[in-house]
Amino acid sequence: MVKVKETLLDKINSPADLKKLSTEELPEVCKELREFIIDAVSTNPGHFGASLGVVELTVALHYVYNTPYDLLVWDVGHQAYGHKILTGRREAFDTNRKFNGLSGFPKRDESEYDAFGVGHSSTSISAALGMAIASGLKEEKDRNVVAIIGDGAMTGGMAFEALNNAGATKANLLVILNDNNMAIDPNSGVIGQYLLNISKSQTYNKVKKEVWEGLGKLDGFGEKTRKFIQKNQHALKNILLKENNLFEAFDFRYFGPIDGHDVKYLAKALQDLKKISGPKLLHVVTKKGKGFLQAEKNQTKFHAPGLFNKETGEIYTSGCQVDNAHKFQNVFGETLVELAEKNKKIVGITPAMPSGCSMNLMIAKMPDRAFDVGIAEQHAVTFAAGLATQGMVPFCNIYSTFMQRAYDQVIHDVAIQSLPVIFCLDRGGLVGEDGPTHHGVFDIAYMRTVPNMIVCAPMDEPDLRNLMYTAQLGELKQPISIRYPRGCGNVPDWRRPFEKIEIGKGRQLSEGTDLAILTIGKSGIFAQDAIKMLADENISAAHFDLRFVKPLDEDLLRSVFKKYRKILTVEDGVIKGGFGSAVLEFMAENGFSSQVKILGVPDRFIEHGALKELYKVCGIDKEGIVSAARDLVEN
Amino acid sequence: MVKVKETLLDKINSPADLKKLSTEELPEVCKELREFIIDAVSTNPGHFGASLGVVELTVALHYVYNTPYDLLVWDVGHQAYGHKILTGRREAFDTNRKFNGLSGFPKRDESEYDAFGVGHSSTSISAALGMAIASGLKEEKDRNVVAIIGDGAMTGGMAFEALNNAGATKANLLVILNDNNMAIDPNSGVIGQYLLNISKSQTYNKVKKEVWEGLGKLDGFGEKTRKFIQKNQHALKNILLKENNLFEAFDFRYFGPIDGHDVKYLAKALQDLKKISGPKLLHVVTKKGKGFLQAEKNQTKFHAPGLFNKETGEIYTSGCQVDNAHKFQNVFGETLVELAEKNKKIVGITPAMPSGCSMNLMIAKMPDRAFDVGIAEQHAVTFAAGLATQGMVPFCNIYSTFMQRAYDQVIHDVAIQSLPVIFCLDRGGLVGEDGPTHHGVFDIAYMRTVPNMIVCAPMDEPDLRNLMYTAQLGELKQPISIRYPRGCGNVPDWRRPFEKIEIGKGRQLSEGTDLAILTIGKSGIFAQDAIKMLADENISAAHFDLRFVKPLDEDLLRSVFKKYRKILTVEDGVIKGGFGSAVLEFMAENGFSSQVKILGVPDRFIEHGALKELYKVCGIDKEGIVSAARDLVEN
Repeated sequence: MVKVKETLLDKINSPADLKKLSTEELPEVCKELREFIIDAVSTNPGHFGASLGVVELTVALHYVYNTPYDLLVWDVGHQAYGHKILTGRREAFDTNRKFNGLSGFPKRDESEYDAFGVGHSSTSISAALGMAIASGLKEEKDRNVVAIIGDGAMTGGMAFEALNNAGATKANLLVILNDNNMAIDPNSGVIGQYLLNISKSQTYNKVKKEVWEGLGKLDGFGEKTRKFIQKNQHALKNILLKENNLFEAFDFRYFGPIDGHDVKYLAKALQDLKKISGPKLLHVVTKKGKGFLQAEKNQTKFHAPGLFNKETGEIYTSGCQVDNAHKFQNVFGETLVELAEKNKKIVGITPAMPSGCSMNLMIAKMPDRAFDVGIAEQHAVTFAAGLATQGMVPFCNIYSTFMQRAYDQVIHDVAIQSLPVIFCLDRGGLVGEDGPTHHGVFDIAYMRTVPNMIVCAPMDEPDLRNLMYTAQLGELKQPISIRYPRGCGNVPDWRRPFEKIEIGKGRQLSEGTDLAILTIGKSGIFAQDAIKMLADENISAAHFDLRFVKPLDEDLLRSVFKKYRKILTVEDGVIKGGFGSAVLEFMAENGFSSQVKILGVPDRFIEHGALKELYKVCGIDKEGIVSAARDLVEN
Repeated sequence: MVKVKETLLDKINSPADLKKLSTEELPEVCKELREFIIDAVSTNPGHFGASLGVVELTVALHYVYNTPYDLLVWDVGHQAYGHKILTGRREAFDTNRKFNGLSGFPKRDESEYDAFGVGHSSTSISAALGMAIASGLKEEKDRNVVAIIGDGAMTGGMAFEALNNAGATKANLLVILNDNNMAIDPNSGVIGQYLLNISKSQTYNKVKKEVWEGLGKLDGFGEKTRKFIQKNQHALKNILLKENNLFEAFDFRYFGPIDGHDVKYLAKALQDLKKISGPKLLHVVTKKGKGFLQAEKNQTKFHAPGLFNKETGEIYTSGCQVDNAHKFQNVFGETLVELAEKNKKIVGITPAMPSGCSMNLMIAKMPDRAFDVGIAEQHAVTFAAGLATQGMVPFCNIYSTFMQRAYDQVIHDVAIQSLPVIFCLDRGGLVGEDGPTHHGVFDIAYMRTVPNMIVCAPMDEPDLRNLMYTAQLGELKQPISIRYPRGCGNVPDWRRPFEKIEIGKGRQLSEGTDLAILTIGKSGIFAQDAIKMLADENISAAHFDLRFVKPLDEDLLRSVFKKYRKILTVEDGVIKGGFGSAVLEFMAENGFSSQVKILGVPDRFIEHGALKELYKVCGIDKEGIVSAARDLVEN
């Protein structure tokens, strides 16, 4: 029995092998694929629940469509493990998310089956529409383009921009709405509820049973039926759906909702839909974590659970290396609650990352004052601006990489009006296994170009707390951006009394004579280690933690440039336009001419892998700093 | 008669004065306000059609609501002239858009009646929701918040993000959908058509006449009616609208559509809606340009017509100062058609700016290959990426300031995958009268941080043409960003044969011994003039047009740094992180130590005014360059 189970999936080295199977064998393939994913992810951490939820859909898609000629665009892409496993990457899958291994997301240069690189949410309909339009221009009438998007991703504005555009075209585009009523956390806002209402509605269930399946029985859609559908679009719409629905307002033909875990039915539905041209949407209802009980029950925890016991469902929390140290996100979350309990003007805003950024703590304690606004960074920022106009003190927490989505709103809605919104950028700097789509390496550069914006990065947990404390005192008449890294800090007793920090003031952490090392944020920790190693080589380095990229501590810099001919700057962010660049601007503006070497993320996209490996690749770990300092002093 | 007309508006120095009038007098106020706007804008150019379209709505809003305590948020804001005139700025209105005069958009520090600063599209619902939530937290039960948003702005994704969030709250928020079926150009995509269908539908017209007006007769909404409405929401919905509609999918109560030019009826409707709590949407149908025949007939031309004859409707096109010179946008538009006629892979994408960027020329000639995707910059970029994956050659034209909206998509969907999308950034640099919301000054800084991206800026029209030509040859395996300024060039014979430009190569335009002036883009023109003036002072300046910010011409820079101890860089963009900063990075990386002075836009938001004045304020006009060069040489 076990032998047989293994055999089906083992034989599938490409979708061509899958197509050799009968429809009756598909449920078995699904079972094996699900087990493969559970085995793989329990021992090599990655995203979990999302891929389990689309096992049947994935099998059906590759069974029905002629991939890679037909193009599948997975939104976000953390649900695409099954897709990878079925498209020639089964054996390599144990390298998933490892340095030089498979990417955790679809990636064009990894496989011809990955039609579009993803990672961020809500891009799939736009990309797929581009492909479908191109296909139309090239007169490839037999090519299908399918976007697979979750209901969470559907809250992102660009998905609606794409629907609005697509509906007005004749593009041969199928959007599959994978509706599991979840983002990473439970889906926020109205759309989720709306879809749930559709799914539960009598009308729709009746439709499914009587009309859709009835049509289905007509030997697929025969020529006649197809013509009937095309001619009687409106009539049919009224049969299928008594009410118009959201997607039909966008001129998509809506089909569904159907059971996303019935692979044979899915395959049949997709086969039928291939024969209907134009923009259409198939609403598929799935369960995130399907087939792994604990993941079904606790969908947020099992979104990306880390290592776990596949028998018991126990999650092995790895903890922080330094005893009692906490993740920076927890320091943020707990500090926010502490401050908000005293300062009633504080409100919290997160775009669909309450557990990721630990704002769930505030949401639990003060549900009226903390807002999960959906996957909607643009809205999150302008919503915060609106709150600030009325004297509230908004902490708007957005991962550094996702803040790229709201750059215009930061400039246009917050900074121009100098509204005192407090931006907390979690996951600043390299993030490790999620790779290039998720590294938060641009923020220092793009934030410091914005007038009125204070740009800072704490080196450690007490500094994060104190910057948050300082920001909410009501003294700032302008916005502030506080960025901090993914993962653990290293100060076990971080829960110290608050201290106000003077805006634009850095600090000297160690004395030295041969060179000055200027750091921002977490890089300061590496610099401290490096300085000890340099001392062993008889190189004496002074260390300055600038803390603020803007305003720069000009007094401190002036004294540094007067004293040191050799200056090394270190940051966990892009070199182009970053912190080091700001130091150079100060130097030029003030007529200094020391020799400055900038360490940071070079001008290329850094791949995925363990953080340690990536710091090394960029030369910003302690060894990199030592090496650069040595070169600087010797040359 | 004329005397009386003038008197009503003349007496209105604040909404309090408006409230003293009887409803019967409101039509007369509207008439006068409309005439005032026609008088003002025909002689002092600005936005026109949009403000004419909302005259009645504006009067009704200030008549009914207790502004500024009640908060009005105008989306985009170019329709807010009437609002400004009624709120104490009538006499100052002749300074509209002038340096040190009134802003062309609502602006918080200009008036307490301007609840939120605007300029870019689709922000109003987010901001208003923030205000309404704040108001709820502060228990201000009598405060109303109203967002007024056009159907064009409704195509922007963040408006949907906001609807999705707002519908899930109990916020006391009224969204007024000002439906004129236009953006600057006719509204693109499905939403516009959808709204038109609603407006024309028998059901809706019947509703308006029978039900809504019927309810209206009940002496406003009395206590009983209100309770009835609250209890029988669904039943009422079914009476008002036989179908569910788009906005009800977002849990907004939908009212309308109603005639946006019947001021008395509008006032009554608003009065009634004040009594209904929670998120609600009023659909108002208006005509852009209402009351000025030529503007009604040619809505795109009269969006912002420049000077015109208010009797005949003749638009006085100002032309370019240099004979036969063209606007840069026309050079782009005509060149695009020229290239696309030969290269069948070329496609064009514009987010709702076909006439603004002159892609209307390609849309007219090749409607299948040029796409107006709506006010949807995020989608535009990822749509272009999708097209590029299939071997098309997309020219994606987005104003520099609006490209801020798609920064993440540029990084995530284009650059990481190194897709050869050709970005053309119109309105790069200071833009003049539109002011801080519209200056395209950040692009050089934010684009050059992006790996794989080629960043360039032509100095003149032939250079723009040649960069466009070079980009579409199919040799680039990466994206390119070509930014060029608003307004006219100065090369009358710009329509020269195409020449390929080597990527990353600058050029020396004049010799000199005392200093080197390095420029990017249009600043090169000012530098050429400055160098002539410097020669009169016996200062000999060499001029290098770098053309590329990335990759920098390192050979050229190496020779410059070897030869010159004094180097001046000039750019029409922010100093922080910009072109000059890139030159400093080169200097530090390569161990040079010349004295470098950076000219560019300083670290504050630059107000509105004539371009000439703004260049002067920033010190980047020819006089500014002369002065900086002199200082540099002398010190």
